[in-house]
Amino acid sequence: MCEASAYLLKDNDQELIMEAVDTIEPEEGGFKLVNIFGEQKFVRAAIHSLSLVDHKVFFKKNDES
Amino acid sequence: MCEASAYLLKDNDQELIMEAVDTIEPEEGGFKLVNIFGEQKFVRAAIHSLSLVDHKVFFKKNDES
Repeated sequence: MCEASAYLLKDNDQELIMEAVDTIEPEEGGFKLVNIFGEQKFVRAAIHSLSLVDHKVFFKKNDES
Repeated sequence: MCEASAYLLKDNDQELIMEAVDTIEPEEGGFKLVNIFGEQKFVRAAIHSLSLVDHKVFFKKNDES
């Protein structure tokens, strides 16, 4: 399985948002994350970058980018 | 390995941009894709959505979103 962990980038830090993320879909003002267990979470940020071999997706607040 | 294929969404279609993508990093006006072979490609679009278990990353031109 190739799910990833989603992190929110903050200054020099990164905060774990959700593990085992499968799909990330745009929603009003952000993105809806769904993990492989069917759990959902909304993130009010943009997708900043991906490192797929490391299984990582990074988000960043729009007003900081 | 958990690399993905990157597609550009167009109306009812999707165009393959690059296969075996590892990292996607923001650059001026778009994103730089690097695949597992070290090849690079610049995409002038935003990251629209991800389907990681399907190994797919979708981009969309900013002015269409």
